[in-house]
Amino acid sequence: MAGEDLEKLLKIMKTKPRGVAIFGPSAKRGFYWIKSLINLNYDGYIVPIHPRLKTAVGFTCYKRLDEVPMKIKTDYAIIAVPRKVVPEVLWQCIKRHVNVATIFTSGYSETDPVKGKKAEQELLDILEEGERVHGHRLRVLGPNCIGAYYPEFGLGFRTDLAKEHGPVGIVSQSGGLAINIALRGKMLGIKFSNVVSVGNSIDLGPAELLKLMEIDGSTKYIGCYFESLGKSQLAGRRLYAILQEITKKKPVLIWRGGRTARGSEAASSHTGALKTSGKIFNAFIQQTGIIPVHSFEEMMDTLLAFQMVKGHSGKNIAMISISGGSGVTATDDIIEYGLELPALSKDTQEKIAKITFTDVGMSVKNPVDLGASYYGFSVISKSIKAILQDPKIDILFMEISAHYIYNATVLAYDDFPRLYFKEVLKAMKNAKRETRKPIFVIMPEIAYERETLTDRHLFLDNNIPVFPTVERATLALSNLISGTKRLE
Amino acid sequence: MAGEDLEKLLKIMKTKPRGVAIFGPSAKRGFYWIKSLINLNYDGYIVPIHPRLKTAVGFTCYKRLDEVPMKIKTDYAIIAVPRKVVPEVLWQCIKRHVNVATIFTSGYSETDPVKGKKAEQELLDILEEGERVHGHRLRVLGPNCIGAYYPEFGLGFRTDLAKEHGPVGIVSQSGGLAINIALRGKMLGIKFSNVVSVGNSIDLGPAELLKLMEIDGSTKYIGCYFESLGKSQLAGRRLYAILQEITKKKPVLIWRGGRTARGSEAASSHTGALKTSGKIFNAFIQQTGIIPVHSFEEMMDTLLAFQMVKGHSGKNIAMISISGGSGVTATDDIIEYGLELPALSKDTQEKIAKITFTDVGMSVKNPVDLGASYYGFSVISKSIKAILQDPKIDILFMEISAHYIYNATVLAYDDFPRLYFKEVLKAMKNAKRETRKPIFVIMPEIAYERETLTDRHLFLDNNIPVFPTVERATLALSNLISGTKRLE
Repeated sequence: MAGEDLEKLLKIMKTKPRGVAIFGPSAKRGFYWIKSLINLNYDGYIVPIHPRLKTAVGFTCYKRLDEVPMKIKTDYAIIAVPRKVVPEVLWQCIKRHVNVATIFTSGYSETDPVKGKKAEQELLDILEEGERVHGHRLRVLGPNCIGAYYPEFGLGFRTDLAKEHGPVGIVSQSGGLAINIALRGKMLGIKFSNVVSVGNSIDLGPAELLKLMEIDGSTKYIGCYFESLGKSQLAGRRLYAILQEITKKKPVLIWRGGRTARGSEAASSHTGALKTSGKIFNAFIQQTGIIPVHSFEEMMDTLLAFQMVKGHSGKNIAMISISGGSGVTATDDIIEYGLELPALSKDTQEKIAKITFTDVGMSVKNPVDLGASYYGFSVISKSIKAILQDPKIDILFMEISAHYIYNATVLAYDDFPRLYFKEVLKAMKNAKRETRKPIFVIMPEIAYERETLTDRHLFLDNNIPVFPTVERATLALSNLISGTKRLE
Repeated sequence: MAGEDLEKLLKIMKTKPRGVAIFGPSAKRGFYWIKSLINLNYDGYIVPIHPRLKTAVGFTCYKRLDEVPMKIKTDYAIIAVPRKVVPEVLWQCIKRHVNVATIFTSGYSETDPVKGKKAEQELLDILEEGERVHGHRLRVLGPNCIGAYYPEFGLGFRTDLAKEHGPVGIVSQSGGLAINIALRGKMLGIKFSNVVSVGNSIDLGPAELLKLMEIDGSTKYIGCYFESLGKSQLAGRRLYAILQEITKKKPVLIWRGGRTARGSEAASSHTGALKTSGKIFNAFIQQTGIIPVHSFEEMMDTLLAFQMVKGHSGKNIAMISISGGSGVTATDDIIEYGLELPALSKDTQEKIAKITFTDVGMSVKNPVDLGASYYGFSVISKSIKAILQDPKIDILFMEISAHYIYNATVLAYDDFPRLYFKEVLKAMKNAKRETRKPIFVIMPEIAYERETLTDRHLFLDNNIPVFPTVERATLALSNLISGTKRLE
C-alpha cells in the first residue's frame, strides 16, 4: 500500500461518515442494521435503500442510491442484498462516492472455492473499473462480513454494543467472534476504538487494518482473531512485515483459530481461509513479537489488563485471601505460570500481624490469609497499603470473595457489603496512587453470582481489572509483562 | 481400622444425630453454627453451651453439657471454644456419649509444629482415656476444621447451603475449599451426600472418610481436595490401599493443592500438612486409578458431568453452534484434548441441509454451524434429533448463546427466549430418551449474564450439564470417559 493511499484511507476511517446507506434493510431481520446505528447514537443520515419498502424504522426508503437527494452524503454503506444484486449495488456506491462498504452478503469463496472466488474477482474488478471510470475508489470490507464497530462514530453491527469508546482495537477473521469480543468487552469494562471483522477480505484485510491501527493514535492495544495469515503467500509476507513494525509500538495479541488440522478444516469452510500450517504460524509468532493467546478468555483478560494497567508491572505478586486453601492453590497457579510470590518483608509482616486478630488460622507471609480479620475495615485497608508499599512486591492480587462478604451479613448488618466495598476501594485507590503499583481483583465464581455481576463494576470503574480465577489473572499478568517488555 | 469399628462408624455417620451440642455459640459470629442447622431444616435438638449466655437464637443455653436434661440426647457436637478449654469440653462430650465432635478451634499443628503437635496429642490421649474409663469412644473431626455438611440430616457449616442431597461426596483438607465446593455445587446443580472437611485430622481423616464413602450407598462419586497424603508414611500407605479398592467401584477425583514447592510451603502453614513430593503424588495418582484434576473449575465440571450423565459416553462429539468462528475454536479445543469431532454421516447431513435456510454461511458437517437457522424452532429440534441418532456420534455439545437468543427479540417477539428454550428442551429430552446419548450445553459468558444465570437451571434441572466454555466441557467429558472406563 503506497503511503499516499494509506493516508487517504486513514482519513476516511478516522472521519465520521456523514451518512450511512443500508442496502437491504430487512423487516425479517428486525431492521437491526438501522437499529444498531440508532442505539449507538449515530447522528448522521440513515438512508435505507430497498426496491419495495416505503419506510424502514420510520426512515424514508429509496429504491436506489441515485434517488437520494444530492445534499444527503452517504460515506459508508452496508450491503445486505442477495448475492446477484451485489455488483449493481457496488456501482451505485461508486457513482455516489461512498468511501467504504461492508458487504454482509455471504455465499462466496467460503461456500464454493471455485465459483465463489470468481464472484469475488468480479467484485474486485468493479472496484477497479469504478476507479478508472469515475475516479473514485470504493474500499470494501467483506464479503461474508459483519463489518465494523466504531463507537466514537456511532457505527456498529449490533443493537446492544457499548456506546463508550477507548484504546482497544480488534481485527477478527470471524464476524461471530467480533461480536463476542465487543459484547464481552462491554461486560468486562474493555473499551474499544474499533472492532473490525474482515470476512473474506477481498480488499480491506488484516494487513490494511493493522497498518491503520499502527498510525491511529486512539488505538493503544490490538487484539486479533486470525484463522489464516492471508489469502496468498504475498499477503502473509505483508502481514509479517506490518506486525514486525507495529509490535515495536503497540502490544498485539493474536488468538489463532484452526490450530489443529481438524480446526483448520472447519476454518476453511468458515471464511474460505487458506490453510496456514502450525509451524508457519508459530514461527510467525516468535519472529514478529506478537503475544499469542490460546482462548477467548485469555484474549479478553489480557486486553483488560493492558487497558487498566498503565505502564509495566514486575512479576512479584502478593496475594490476600480469606481462605488458606485458596492461598495454597493460588500459589500453585502463580508459580506454575513462572511468576513469583516472594515472602513479604519482615517489616510488612509485622505491620499486618500487629493489626490482625491473633487467634485464627491466618498467615502474614504470602499469600496473606487474613482469616476472620478479612472482615475488618481497618485491617483490610492497612494490609492493602502495607503490601503495596513493600519494596519486594510489584502487584497485589486481592481475592474478593462474595460468598464471605455477603454471608457476613449474618454476622453483622445488612449494609455490610456496601460499606465494605467502599472501604476496600478507597484503600486500593490510595495505595495505587501512592505506590504506582497495580492491583488485580480476583472474584471467584462461588456463590452470590448476581451480586458479583454488579460489584465487579465497582472495581472496573476505577481501572482495577477483575478476573474470575487466580489462574486467569496470572496468565493475563504474564502476557502483560511480556508485551510491555517488548516495548521498552 | 477393624471391620467392626468401621461398621460402627458407618452406623454413626449414617444416623441423624438426635441432638447437636454447640460449644461456644458466638454472638459476634452471628450464631452461624445454630443458624446453619436451622436453615438446613435440622429437626433434632439444638443445644447451645455457653458459660454466660442465657439464650442463643432463642434456644436455652446451658453452662455445661452435664446440665442438659438427660432426655435430650446430643450425638454430635461442634466445639468452637478457646483452645485452653477444648480438653475439658472433650471430657463433657465423652461423659454424655457424644458420637462425633468437630473441633473448629484452631491454633494447633498448623500454627506451631512442635507445641501444636503436643496439644493435638493431648486431645488424642483424652479420646483414648475416655474410651478406657467410660467405655465410650468419641470420634473427632479436626481440630482447625469447619466440619461436615450432611444435607440429608440438616447438618452444615454455612447458613446458605443447599437443602437437597444427592450422590456426590467430598473430602477436603481445607475448610474454605469445602465451603467453596458446597456453595458452587449449589449454583451448578451438584447434589451432595456429604462434604467433609478434615482439618488437622488427628482422628477421623481422609482414609477413614473415604472408607466410609466406599461402603455408603448414597455416595456414587467422590471428589477430594488434598494437600498431603497424610501425617505419616503409614497414613499415606493406608490411603493408598483404600483408594486402590474404592476406584474399582466409584470414580474418585483428586484435586491437589501444594503441587509446587512454594504452594506446598503455603500448605504446611495451612493444615500442618506433611509435605508430599510431586513424584510421590504422581505415582500415587497413576497407581490408584484416581482422576487427577488441576483446578477448582475442573473438579466441579467433572463432578457435574458424572452426576448428570448416567453410564458412559464415547468420545465422538457433534457440536451445534450459531457462529463459524466459535465452531472453529471449539474444534481446536476438542481435538487438542484428544477427543473426536467426526463428520456427520451423509444421511444426517442431508436431513439437516433439507430443513435449514440455504442462503447463509452455514455448515452441516461437524461442527454444525446453523447460522440464521439456529433461530428456527423446528430446525433446532430436528437437528438435535438427527445428530443424536447418527451412529457415528456419542454425545452432543449444544452451544446456547444467550447473546443471540436474547438479541433475537429485536427480530421477533419479546417472548422469544422463553419459547425457544421450551422447544430446545423438549427436543433434547426426547432425543436423550430415544437415543440414550448425553447432551452437554455450552453457555458462553458473552453477554446477558443475568439471564444466563436463570436459564442455566432449565437445563440442569433436566440432568443436562452446563459449561461456560467448550474447553471446560471437553475436559469434563475426557475425565468422565477415563473415570467410567476404569469401572467397566
